[in-house]
Amino acid sequence: MPLLSATAAACPNIALIKYWGNKDHEFRIPENGSISFNLSGLATKTTVTFDPAFEEDRLSINDEVIEDSGLKRVKSFLKIIRQMSGKPYFAHVTSQNNYPMSVGIASSAAAFAALSVAASAAIGLTLSERELSRLARRGSGSACRSIPSGFVEWYPGNSDQNSYAESFASPDHWDLTDLIAVVTKKHKSVGSTAGHALAHTSPLQTARIADTQRRLSVVRHAILNKDFEALAEMVELDSNMMHAVMMTSNPPLVYWEPTTISIIKSVPIWRNENIHVCYTMDAGPNVHVICLKEDVQTVQAKLKEIPGIQDVLIANVGQGTRLITD
Amino acid sequence: MPLLSATAAACPNIALIKYWGNKDHEFRIPENGSISFNLSGLATKTTVTFDPAFEEDRLSINDEVIEDSGLKRVKSFLKIIRQMSGKPYFAHVTSQNNYPMSVGIASSAAAFAALSVAASAAIGLTLSERELSRLARRGSGSACRSIPSGFVEWYPGNSDQNSYAESFASPDHWDLTDLIAVVTKKHKSVGSTAGHALAHTSPLQTARIADTQRRLSVVRHAILNKDFEALAEMVELDSNMMHAVMMTSNPPLVYWEPTTISIIKSVPIWRNENIHVCYTMDAGPNVHVICLKEDVQTVQAKLKEIPGIQDVLIANVGQGTRLITD
Repeated sequence: MPLLSATAAACPNIALIKYWGNKDHEFRIPENGSISFNLSGLATKTTVTFDPAFEEDRLSINDEVIEDSGLKRVKSFLKIIRQMSGKPYFAHVTSQNNYPMSVGIASSAAAFAALSVAASAAIGLTLSERELSRLARRGSGSACRSIPSGFVEWYPGNSDQNSYAESFASPDHWDLTDLIAVVTKKHKSVGSTAGHALAHTSPLQTARIADTQRRLSVVRHAILNKDFEALAEMVELDSNMMHAVMMTSNPPLVYWEPTTISIIKSVPIWRNENIHVCYTMDAGPNVHVICLKEDVQTVQAKLKEIPGIQDVLIANVGQGTRLITD
Repeated sequence: MPLLSATAAACPNIALIKYWGNKDHEFRIPENGSISFNLSGLATKTTVTFDPAFEEDRLSINDEVIEDSGLKRVKSFLKIIRQMSGKPYFAHVTSQNNYPMSVGIASSAAAFAALSVAASAAIGLTLSERELSRLARRGSGSACRSIPSGFVEWYPGNSDQNSYAESFASPDHWDLTDLIAVVTKKHKSVGSTAGHALAHTSPLQTARIADTQRRLSVVRHAILNKDFEALAEMVELDSNMMHAVMMTSNPPLVYWEPTTISIIKSVPIWRNENIHVCYTMDAGPNVHVICLKEDVQTVQAKLKEIPGIQDVLIANVGQGTRLITD
């Protein structure tokens, strides 16, 4: 029997229109559509090996054996792969990230995108991009957006069949840069999966969802037309709307730190100075400061002046998840 | 002719369920009802003198002659008084505050409450408390809540006739203390009147309004039953909901400063340590940290440990606006 092993590399992605709240938690069918782009330079590389001789699933991340809820989540995912392939083998999964985990850079998105591509290839499944996107969604909702390349829209759908992400512009369509201002490297206290389950407890979530088509449409067109001003205003509104829902849920989730406020109050002022820049935040305190390539150095210099920023990671618009065949 | 002069003193008030957005901007008919208590210790004292010999309205605040938009607003208000009384005299208004203005401590509420009582008495109008509350509302919406004593509810109504505030518990009903953490003494960039006009531009405002009856009911009952835990949770939710609307309006209003975040993240942690404390914020960066009398010293000590707090003002539940007859 050939060795059932494969390696894949995936980027995290940054949502410009956010995913927050599920119609169906088990299948991670989102309440609303979302738009993101992949973050090149940040990478998760994952090797999956299935073997009839293995007696259990094993997971290591960054050379550390994982035994807690992280392993449990991967086991649940591998169970889906075993069901799809009809092969009941256990797997060993080893994963390497080149960026800090669980600080709001959606490490689970890259992790489950890479795992989907590596595990399905390892076990001999031939899946289309859409099928891979649906599969990745089962592990982490936003992982479905890391499968296709470049600028991506996740169609929410209403079932496992029709909830998947698709590229609508290639990575070289528009030179956006994401300067990720790392405000804290602490693990966040409430992860996204738990957070999504709280979304409906906010009196504001229904209104946020009802307004989504408008925001998606503005952002999709702003990207296709490379209209930074239109993009900036809607991206910041959408981020604020998600955090508005978070901080009015029960219990409230306030992911912002003091330095977060410094950044999100500064960025619109910089934009008034004709710098093409806007901010967006995921479920964490770090701020993704997105700008045009021509403004990267200016924005970097300005970020350096804000006290409390621990690090700035730089990413451009990246490819989708791909097998590594060396 | 007797001297047409009177002096009144008023407290600002802190809203536990917030007012944000108007059905009618001219008459300041609010979109939703609100609940507040008056803040004793903080006071505005205003003397109004009408004289047929005066050739114009004049205003001084804290011994400084005011000529800008502040005077214009007072002139508009005095015009209402002249219409009500049928006496076309100009007035000189002198006002003293014992606390910093325009930092989110609703100085305009105390100002227009004191002005209503002093001006109406000076010109010889005999008005009921309800009529004074309606009158004060014309100058500054939340001023209507500084007229009655203690814990107050503003019934939004839908016209000048039926939009007024009324006391539902006296100042000695419940020993609450408001520790006002002053984060900045800078004037705020967008005042409340301009802010109210933006409320409808937030996609979340309608949902906030629709949920108001529930929040009012919980807070009213929590006050009547002295149920601090129920009060705390709803007061923080309501404050976060108002700021959620503010930061998602167009243009967005982010009143929070870095130190604001430090405080609003700390207070719920203190409450988990069995301290009776909660936070609420008006349209400004300062945080009203409300606690039971028994916890004042503990909370003061904890506030001292948070960097960036410039001052802490202390207030208890106060009386309504009264004439000063000495």
